[in-house]
Amino acid sequence: MKRFISRKEEYIPEAFYNIKADLVEQPKPKLHPATKNSITFDDMTPLFSKEFVKQEMTTERFVKIPDAVKEKYAIYRPTPFIYASGLKKYLNTPAEIFFKYEGAGPMGSHKSNTAIMQAYLASQEGITTLTTETGAGQWGSALAQAGALFGVDVKVYMVRTSYRAKPGRKVMMELYQANVKESPSASTKAGMKYFSENNNHPGSLGIAISEAIELAVTSSNVKYSLGSVLDAVLLHQTVIGQETIAQMEEAGVFPDTVIGCVGGGSNFAGIAFPFMRTVIKENKKIKFIAVEPEACPTLTKGKLDYDFGDSSAMTPLLYMHSLGMDFVPSEIHAGGLRYHGMAPLVSYFYDKKMIEARAYSQPKVFDAAKVFFRTEGILPAPESSHAICAAIEEALEAKKNNTPKVIVFSLSGHGFFDYNAYALNQ
Amino acid sequence: MKRFISRKEEYIPEAFYNIKADLVEQPKPKLHPATKNSITFDDMTPLFSKEFVKQEMTTERFVKIPDAVKEKYAIYRPTPFIYASGLKKYLNTPAEIFFKYEGAGPMGSHKSNTAIMQAYLASQEGITTLTTETGAGQWGSALAQAGALFGVDVKVYMVRTSYRAKPGRKVMMELYQANVKESPSASTKAGMKYFSENNNHPGSLGIAISEAIELAVTSSNVKYSLGSVLDAVLLHQTVIGQETIAQMEEAGVFPDTVIGCVGGGSNFAGIAFPFMRTVIKENKKIKFIAVEPEACPTLTKGKLDYDFGDSSAMTPLLYMHSLGMDFVPSEIHAGGLRYHGMAPLVSYFYDKKMIEARAYSQPKVFDAAKVFFRTEGILPAPESSHAICAAIEEALEAKKNNTPKVIVFSLSGHGFFDYNAYALNQ
Repeated sequence: MKRFISRKEEYIPEAFYNIKADLVEQPKPKLHPATKNSITFDDMTPLFSKEFVKQEMTTERFVKIPDAVKEKYAIYRPTPFIYASGLKKYLNTPAEIFFKYEGAGPMGSHKSNTAIMQAYLASQEGITTLTTETGAGQWGSALAQAGALFGVDVKVYMVRTSYRAKPGRKVMMELYQANVKESPSASTKAGMKYFSENNNHPGSLGIAISEAIELAVTSSNVKYSLGSVLDAVLLHQTVIGQETIAQMEEAGVFPDTVIGCVGGGSNFAGIAFPFMRTVIKENKKIKFIAVEPEACPTLTKGKLDYDFGDSSAMTPLLYMHSLGMDFVPSEIHAGGLRYHGMAPLVSYFYDKKMIEARAYSQPKVFDAAKVFFRTEGILPAPESSHAICAAIEEALEAKKNNTPKVIVFSLSGHGFFDYNAYALNQ
Repeated sequence: MKRFISRKEEYIPEAFYNIKADLVEQPKPKLHPATKNSITFDDMTPLFSKEFVKQEMTTERFVKIPDAVKEKYAIYRPTPFIYASGLKKYLNTPAEIFFKYEGAGPMGSHKSNTAIMQAYLASQEGITTLTTETGAGQWGSALAQAGALFGVDVKVYMVRTSYRAKPGRKVMMELYQANVKESPSASTKAGMKYFSENNNHPGSLGIAISEAIELAVTSSNVKYSLGSVLDAVLLHQTVIGQETIAQMEEAGVFPDTVIGCVGGGSNFAGIAFPFMRTVIKENKKIKFIAVEPEACPTLTKGKLDYDFGDSSAMTPLLYMHSLGMDFVPSEIHAGGLRYHGMAPLVSYFYDKKMIEARAYSQPKVFDAAKVFFRTEGILPAPESSHAICAAIEEALEAKKNNTPKVIVFSLSGHGFFDYNAYALNQ
């Protein structure tokens, strides 16, 4: 086994991988929010850019990554693939633990993978403004950056609890000349519904999405951009898993277990789907684990049915695990995982029992983060720490059973802006 | 010219490069602070670990990087070498601009390169505690991390102005279980001298160094660790330039201009010295530019003579450019560049006119940082932004003269913890 793994430029994939092309039975269609019919291309384009909708609906197995996008990826991709020798030693486990670190890029999380692509598509179509929501601020920062790189204005509704806890993220977005609003705000009907009841309402991703969508559908040349959940977003994130496969080949190992945290599901899908292809096509056996917070247990406690992606019933109806469109999670720090729903594709695989799900409490997750921080030296985002927590559990199980195994997890982002949360949990 | 440059594991050098081995005329010796004689190995070991002193004094051209250190480097090295296409386009210049990005590592700056090595050496020698100073917090965080990785306790005196401006850095060090004190503090004689006059004294690196040294020399099994200035620290930083040379070979270009910011001088030396070897040995022609803040103009306004490295005359006397050991710079945000002295080796090359120096004002530097941020997408540390500023000047000169050239600069760290400074300068 090779322990120092390269980041060869040729590991950046040529194309995104569309897992739907490898499914015999397709997931249930998205429905129009009013008619409840299967949604069409024309139904979606008032909200999203045309090219994005094409990618959402494509049946092609591979979608080429444009050169202009690849050039921006090359700033931080291929991302590091790291052998966790310090963690292994600390746990005294026979398991080999690796992680794919998406936090080393300029925006500090995997969100740039889709932000850059979405901003590029918008710029090609002459869209002047993208609106969006952000929880922890990672997605908002990533889109703000991508907008700056491709000359597209960005308006961000930031969930109030994060807006206040993470001023650095707000400053960063504003430095990119993005317009950042605390959500729920008084500037939209969707926001006013909550703001009028409580002007300190902590907010939720569902509410912020409604606000961003309202602005998009009521303005001309403005489209909405979503940072997770949709098939096209998951598609863009498959660069993570494809690189990981190439890097594991260099390392000379293949995973027994692949782990990712889930909020909307895109980081997990990003690392898991390319490996899932080897399960589907080559009959490989891998245990996939999606990890969520107990405070927002979408997979483990949510119901699989049609639900809206936002809190005001403006999005298409998605067949997904959901805690209900009105669900407002407690103010836990893993702001990026505070979403009521789960990507339809991740829900699909969970329903087919191709993936497992686990929910952890915040103290448990912070303990895992601290172990990781001190043994591997990287300050993880609280969201990403859910994956660390599962990796530790798996490694300890290997120790108990005295069986070697290869564990890979996605470390979706760094925690440089989460020091308040860490200080509180010290 | 290749635009996407790999980070091949084999680019991490096997050894540090000691430029002194390639000098016909050696720099003036360090002197004992009391006797004023040339300093000996035994003079230095009360302060520093023995192996560190050996590296400080070595005449070997190459010093092997231990496997345990290389394993930690591999977490973030080789660092990205990036073609600044966005900046080039914005400036509309015939110059090709590249930068070596040291901010993508877990601690966010080049400081880890020497911190990891120093903590390793201390651990091998059974030293239980390392004391140090920190300005911007990058060095303190890097040593705190390295100490955690190798089981060495770390005590950090943090310059008060940074301690207050950058709470994130403090939390980070404490998460690594480092002990962090505001400097000047009341806990040492060296600190008390200033603290007793003004308990809000902004502090300086010189004072913080004195405090850290005092603790080391008055405690058993405690040694002092310095993050810049000394030959051994510059030696460790040569991984930057050696990787850059390999990556430029891959790109198919050679630099006309190499730029780095200077505080103590280690980042500049890290990128410049391996290139300087090609100048010395192969007669290549390169323009080297060291960039400092107007508020602390050590090279451009300082005097070249023997001076102390700290404010209490406890260090060896160093032959270097200095603003005087009592110099306390104004509270500019580039905390890492607020040092009264300059590495003797950098001073040596400046004196020999092998490098140029420039001093910029803070507003000019922040303007450059914002241009870079919006065109390349990376939030730079204010320190690193000095190098950006010079790169922009050079690129505009190339435009004026309509002559192509290849500019390389070192982007020493990210600015995620500097958002207060950016918000103020927006």
